[in-house]
Amino acid sequence: MDYPVLLEAAEAAARATTGRGHVADYIPALAEADPEAFGMAVATVDGELYGVGDWEQPFSVQSVSKLFSLALALAYSSDGGEELWRGVGREPSGNPFNSLVQLETEHGIPRNPFINAGALVVTDRLQSLTGDASGAVREFLRRESGNPLLDTDPVVAASEAAHGHRNAALAHFIASHGNLQNPVETVLEHYYAHCAIATSCRDLVLAGAFLARYGVRTDGTRLMTRSEAKRINAVLLTCGTYDAAGEFAFRVGLPGKSGVGGGVLAILPGRAAICAWGPRLDQAGNSVAAVTALDTLTTLSGCSVF
Amino acid sequence: MDYPVLLEAAEAAARATTGRGHVADYIPALAEADPEAFGMAVATVDGELYGVGDWEQPFSVQSVSKLFSLALALAYSSDGGEELWRGVGREPSGNPFNSLVQLETEHGIPRNPFINAGALVVTDRLQSLTGDASGAVREFLRRESGNPLLDTDPVVAASEAAHGHRNAALAHFIASHGNLQNPVETVLEHYYAHCAIATSCRDLVLAGAFLARYGVRTDGTRLMTRSEAKRINAVLLTCGTYDAAGEFAFRVGLPGKSGVGGGVLAILPGRAAICAWGPRLDQAGNSVAAVTALDTLTTLSGCSVF
Amino acid sequence: MDYPVLLEAAEAAARATTGRGHVADYIPALAEADPEAFGMAVATVDGELYGVGDWEQPFSVQSVSKLFSLALALAYSSDGGEELWRGVGREPSGNPFNSLVQLETEHGIPRNPFINAGALVVTDRLQSLTGDASGAVREFLRRESGNPLLDTDPVVAASEAAHGHRNAALAHFIASHGNLQNPVETVLEHYYAHCAIATSCRDLVLAGAFLARYGVRTDGTRLMTRSEAKRINAVLLTCGTYDAAGEFAFRVGLPGKSGVGGGVLAILPGRAAICAWGPRLDQAGNSVAAVTALDTLTTLSGCSVF
Amino acid sequence: MDYPVLLEAAEAAARATTGRGHVADYIPALAEADPEAFGMAVATVDGELYGVGDWEQPFSVQSVSKLFSLALALAYSSDGGEELWRGVGREPSGNPFNSLVQLETEHGIPRNPFINAGALVVTDRLQSLTGDASGAVREFLRRESGNPLLDTDPVVAASEAAHGHRNAALAHFIASHGNLQNPVETVLEHYYAHCAIATSCRDLVLAGAFLARYGVRTDGTRLMTRSEAKRINAVLLTCGTYDAAGEFAFRVGLPGKSGVGGGVLAILPGRAAICAWGPRLDQAGNSVAAVTALDTLTTLSGCSVF
Repeated sequence: MDYPVLLEAAEAAARATTGRGHVADYIPALAEADPEAFGMAVATVDGELYGVGDWEQPFSVQSVSKLFSLALALAYSSDGGEELWRGVGREPSGNPFNSLVQLETEHGIPRNPFINAGALVVTDRLQSLTGDASGAVREFLRRESGNPLLDTDPVVAASEAAHGHRNAALAHFIASHGNLQNPVETVLEHYYAHCAIATSCRDLVLAGAFLARYGVRTDGTRLMTRSEAKRINAVLLTCGTYDAAGEFAFRVGLPGKSGVGGGVLAILPGRAAICAWGPRLDQAGNSVAAVTALDTLTTLSGCSVF
Repeated sequence: MDYPVLLEAAEAAARATTGRGHVADYIPALAEADPEAFGMAVATVDGELYGVGDWEQPFSVQSVSKLFSLALALAYSSDGGEELWRGVGREPSGNPFNSLVQLETEHGIPRNPFINAGALVVTDRLQSLTGDASGAVREFLRRESGNPLLDTDPVVAASEAAHGHRNAALAHFIASHGNLQNPVETVLEHYYAHCAIATSCRDLVLAGAFLARYGVRTDGTRLMTRSEAKRINAVLLTCGTYDAAGEFAFRVGLPGKSGVGGGVLAILPGRAAICAWGPRLDQAGNSVAAVTALDTLTTLSGCSVF
Repeated sequence: MDYPVLLEAAEAAARATTGRGHVADYIPALAEADPEAFGMAVATVDGELYGVGDWEQPFSVQSVSKLFSLALALAYSSDGGEELWRGVGREPSGNPFNSLVQLETEHGIPRNPFINAGALVVTDRLQSLTGDASGAVREFLRRESGNPLLDTDPVVAASEAAHGHRNAALAHFIASHGNLQNPVETVLEHYYAHCAIATSCRDLVLAGAFLARYGVRTDGTRLMTRSEAKRINAVLLTCGTYDAAGEFAFRVGLPGKSGVGGGVLAILPGRAAICAWGPRLDQAGNSVAAVTALDTLTTLSGCSVF
Repeated sequence: MDYPVLLEAAEAAARATTGRGHVADYIPALAEADPEAFGMAVATVDGELYGVGDWEQPFSVQSVSKLFSLALALAYSSDGGEELWRGVGREPSGNPFNSLVQLETEHGIPRNPFINAGALVVTDRLQSLTGDASGAVREFLRRESGNPLLDTDPVVAASEAAHGHRNAALAHFIASHGNLQNPVETVLEHYYAHCAIATSCRDLVLAGAFLARYGVRTDGTRLMTRSEAKRINAVLLTCGTYDAAGEFAFRVGLPGKSGVGGGVLAILPGRAAICAWGPRLDQAGNSVAAVTALDTLTTLSGCSVF
């Protein structure tokens, strides 16, 4: 595929969405993002790297970090993830991304690892496995991206904590069902810390390429089995974009994870990791520009998983 | 009415429920209660006081304290409760007593002041009005009952806090909707403190008699208007016994408030306050023995509000 | 009580609500009602009858008929209503009046006899008991009111049937849980027929006075026991006014049943039946004018059940 | 891929599930299926056809027909499906397959075309487009499979109708929101008729291969664009297996549609259509043997979409 040409077309389509959607403003630190910023990058399994627009500009990774905390929790598990999957499901939620309803009716077992509740459980397990959940995510991102300066933005993390009553409610509720192994405060702290990491499209495609390589890291070592990597891709496709997973699969046709910072990291299995970023979000919390860009790329190239 | 005879019959009916229901065990301190204890008391508007069984034995007041925190929050309000009723509704919940579902769909406004979520909002407002919500409840109970030793059981309060993830979840969730004026920790502390007060049937009928007297306290002063007292009775009838308010109205026919400590305080407007206590609870969280005793008393006397 | 004076004051308060609320328009036949019509009547247990405004003008009884179908189903039951209460609960719904959600989670057992789903079950049982459910209601209303011309409005009944997809959905759903004894079509037909009866405030207070007389009919015979009549009053208070039962109890403080035709029939146990009517409805489906009139009457007289 | 070897291994794995799960018994006609029957077939895009076990034995297609009714409704649409997608969503339901809850909160727009509610809307639109919705499905299946005897089983269709209160409730409920163009009775009749078609694994892989061929029918003509075919695959993957779509994607990794007759038709885009059949169902309503067989085939071959 001619990625430079595809990226150019994707950027043009994304730029045409100017003015649609709203920058996340539930914490002040996110509200400051330039609404018209846009970047996109591709890292192929052969080691090629392409980018357009603001592809090297850092933004808040937010929920895209959930992909990495899940991958690491599974990679560090000694039982193939069996224990982890007892504490969190892998079904689409069919509900807004921080819903309490489902948690109540399903006894504190979040529907999947990519809704906030599920990511709290994953963070808790990663904390048990490593003793430093957010550090583990940060370290992995640094290694894979080769960007030693990549770090948690302390202002964003503090802002998340200060406005985090809903996440605190979720964590306490999960704890009331006995589904946390660590103190609520610890889990929340590490959750905020890995969500507040500042990354660029460049960083994310390099860090996410292990999924396109079916589990193989940048340095050629294997993080997980081929089968495990494919299964993470499956969960990404059915659950990775909040309450719009069906729509994303329909339009883009790739496994992907979005964040309210405006980033979306998608995987073209066996070929490439692709990341697009634009701060304006649609009603489901996905970046308008990024989804448009990815839609354009897969439509033009005919390269979806379907 | 011949209260001694009615109490005797009520006790006999209550004793016959031996073995039905389960003592609350969500905190160790409650699980230790003698399941077969039973007491009942009546305080008439004329100042008569009657009791049978363990009517002077202290038990954990638990949710019965919500009646008093509501009454005091309304009494201290300078606007007739208008601000309070903006933060909490007065409709039956139609859901289990600590449901999060309704809170989510109704934007953090609890259905009524007697579900846990609503009582947290009431405690918060009472804290704003008095600077010491649990102290205000404790002081009122002491004055009305004439029992200066009445106090919070610190073991129970600590136990509630240690097992309080669900209440913490509720409080954070309400706070996320901007419906708490005080810090979550403060509200929870005072909530646990007034729920953990140890009271007897004797204490509670004396303290609750102001509602039978349409707002007049033991010392003859007025806590609230006649109309306000009647309205509290209305909320008690429709919302006072968790998800079994309809059943309680159907069987007993009196406004009443129950607690998982096994106490139920009921009001016969214009005539008397009646309290029954037995630790075994039915599935809705109401005392099997106490509801049976109250049912017997109103059936025999023909004295319900209907 | 000086009913003429009270009625005059109630009417004045009701007339002052001009313009608030909306006439039910889900079927054309109801939308034609004069929005500013208002009537009110009182029938005392001593046989006195008072009225103001359009108290003799017929309107569509709608859900107020549910009170009578319940009373008759219980009166005709040979088991004290035990079988009936297995098929329908007596808890407030905490949901809009034609909710399917609750039915689904509670296995086809409607919450109470006054939501549409519950009234369908009651109609079904009355059909089994009498062979002519709507005829039984009509006949009872005629006898008690002494109005031989009282009848189902065939235009309204046909209009209900033509716009009755939601009720058909409810009936089929209940049937799918095995909670109907008669064919769905039969139940719906009789349900529409008794809801489409045209009655006046005069008719309704005379017909409803048996509840104020604790079960005794106009002719002095007993329809049901004193205890059964009181229990119907209890269900009316907790469930009679859709999703606003708490509010109605708080403001009016009487057992009552409302209908989207604008009528509200309330009971002052031991004293009188009171009916107010005005076609404009609030968001919960209760008549703005009628609730205001009843609120005024109980506030001025101090005569609520609390 | 060596399909004969893969099918043999898949059959062995499926046979090892003997005794797990339960044959659908909500209608008598389905309950008679031999619980231990098993068949599996593959039709490649190159025209090869393979089968094992009872692959030519007819069974009730049930919900697998929803794939075909959707494809035909889209193919016959003159607006690229725009009108259709206004009446039905494409998000996973996150709820049991015949849920009314979601319908109520989302104003009669079913979540996706593969839950019962959504399939009723699709059947309605196909009826509007063709005048004979079930005939259109039947004819398409006959043509693609080359099986002129393929037909609706009238006993099953009559049985569905006789036990169809839940579907009738859904249809009336959707109609109450104005989301049906044809009479409820007509829609139900055609829905039952296409669900009651008797097909074999052989028939279904031949009929479903158009999706593997990106829209091209057996005779080489195009039913729909490449993009449309890929999008149907996307909806199948996220919504095709009731409330277990995430699990199916995780384990099998293919777009697929299941039915309570025990059949599952899956698509390996660009390569083959695969159908497995076994009457015993898991709790989510998917065939235990068929899912096991498909899981085995994709695990052994490494051929999922991820």
